Amino acid sequence: MSATASFAFQGALGAFSHQAALAFARRFHVSGELRPCTTFGEVFAEVAAGSTAYGVIPLENSSIGSIVANYDLLWSNEAWIVAEYLLPVHHHLIGFAGTKADDVRMVYSHPAALDQCRKLFKQYPHMVACVHWDTSGAVAHVKESVDKRTAAIAGELAASEYGLSILLQNVEDYPHNATRFGLIAPAARARARERPTAAYKMSLAVELGHKVGSLAELLNVLAAAGANLTKIESRPIGETPWHYRFFIDAELPDPNLEDSVISAAQRASENCKLLGRYQKIGEPVEKI
Amino acid sequence: MSATASFAFQGALGAFSHQAALAFARRFHVSGELRPCTTFGEVFAEVAAGSTAYGVIPLENSSIGSIVANYDLLWSNEAWIVAEYLLPVHHHLIGFAGTKADDVRMVYSHPAALDQCRKLFKQYPHMVACVHWDTSGAVAHVKESVDKRTAAIAGELAASEYGLSILLQNVEDYPHNATRFGLIAPAARARARERPTAAYKMSLAVELGHKVGSLAELLNVLAAAGANLTKIESRPIGETPWHYRFFIDAELPDPNLEDSVISAAQRASENCKLLGRYQKIGEPVEKI
Repeated sequence: MSATASFAFQGALGAFSHQAALAFARRFHVSGELRPCTTFGEVFAEVAAGSTAYGVIPLENSSIGSIVANYDLLWSNEAWIVAEYLLPVHHHLIGFAGTKADDVRMVYSHPAALDQCRKLFKQYPHMVACVHWDTSGAVAHVKESVDKRTAAIAGELAASEYGLSILLQNVEDYPHNATRFGLIAPAARARARERPTAAYKMSLAVELGHKVGSLAELLNVLAAAGANLTKIESRPIGETPWHYRFFIDAELPDPNLEDSVISAAQRASENCKLLGRYQKIGEPVEKI
Repeated sequence: MSATASFAFQGALGAFSHQAALAFARRFHVSGELRPCTTFGEVFAEVAAGSTAYGVIPLENSSIGSIVANYDLLWSNEAWIVAEYLLPVHHHLIGFAGTKADDVRMVYSHPAALDQCRKLFKQYPHMVACVHWDTSGAVAHVKESVDKRTAAIAGELAASEYGLSILLQNVEDYPHNATRFGLIAPAARARARERPTAAYKMSLAVELGHKVGSLAELLNVLAAAGANLTKIESRPIGETPWHYRFFIDAELPDPNLEDSVISAAQRASENCKLLGRYQKIGEPVEKI
């Protein structure tokens, strides 16, 4: 096992995806070389090009739901999910040391983060919520502005990354806010690995025809195999309102069942794609 | 059939929900009395209190996915979906007549709308994206500011509502952007109505136990009844990571099948709630 592995993620240093990358590195007992990217698409491109060992992508947030862009990218790219991680997400108002919240006028953050902190803007109606496309980049922007009336909403790591201060702690509306992250690797590399010998989770996506009951047929096979469905997400396909693609996560109690599940999924669908296999959150993980 | 019905919706006059309310009113051949609300929760509260005949809520958008807050509210309130509508969503840059896009500095809109128009901010990097909690309210805010350097992103109706001009048309990243709206009414009133005599769609939500295959069992009953599942959405329940509630839309070819579907859903789940029955988009609707 090498002592270093590179992790690409969307956002600047200090972003929540950066925190998730550090957590994955800890679980693999490697020191993570970090590769910040501007977009999720870039993370997938770096993984495909082999310029990073892994990519780290948010899959779903407890307050705002699935990060659907990443489900669409999993469908259109050859990347597999090889691990999952659940990160508690606490937002802070971050600005220049000594600034009072009452004196802050412009608050920069990612739109999703601003949306998770609406009570703050009700409590401080003089604050204007301004969009920056990542939380940590917003902290960098505030630092560069050298303007004490500006602040950002981001995590603790972003404050320390840029040497700014936490002016208000835990400004998120719901204290149990958490994001589930996926670790992605090139599909060919992940597929070539031996299957886990114990129970694991698999993610797959299917496009169904207009045949009635085809999703039920697929879920039956999963059920017959003793698989426990943990998440199902439907996404509209392209321009046809509303033709859906289904994304499914299921726990497989026995790795030997995967083949029959996949071939049944292929029979029940027009298109079917395995998106990865990985240990359930909280279980020990193996480096891929 | 009365000639007027009231429609509560979230947002200011001119919001996309306002457009959807007008579309529902046209389909019912009534003139709509419009009741703008600040939050989705208020829309549900007005419906529950009987102070409005209907509520109009966005259910899902083709670019950003489900409006999960409304699924959570459908679970926790006694409101039924009684009709659905698919609204094409085109965003425009709206400001003062004669202003050039190059001169605009602050652009206000809902975070979801800003998120759907990222290319604009790449093309005009001097524009700062500022959050307002609804698109149409952002136009009103710009009008009040009397500042030619401000603009908003919103729909056409919002521009005409506040007498401002469209500076740039169709600034959304994806031209096929569309939102599916639901029309809600008090559950007791909707339930007391006779069932449709022809095929219809039903929405229901289930909380499943840890029994393997319980969702498959439910979908089997739907399939056996000839029902065509059109959408399935899973939402985490409260603080348990990750225990899910499933929201299901299905087309029922025969209204007589509903009872067996519901009782099977109850057997297969810990909790089960019918969330409404309605005609498929594009079919004639009846006033409820």
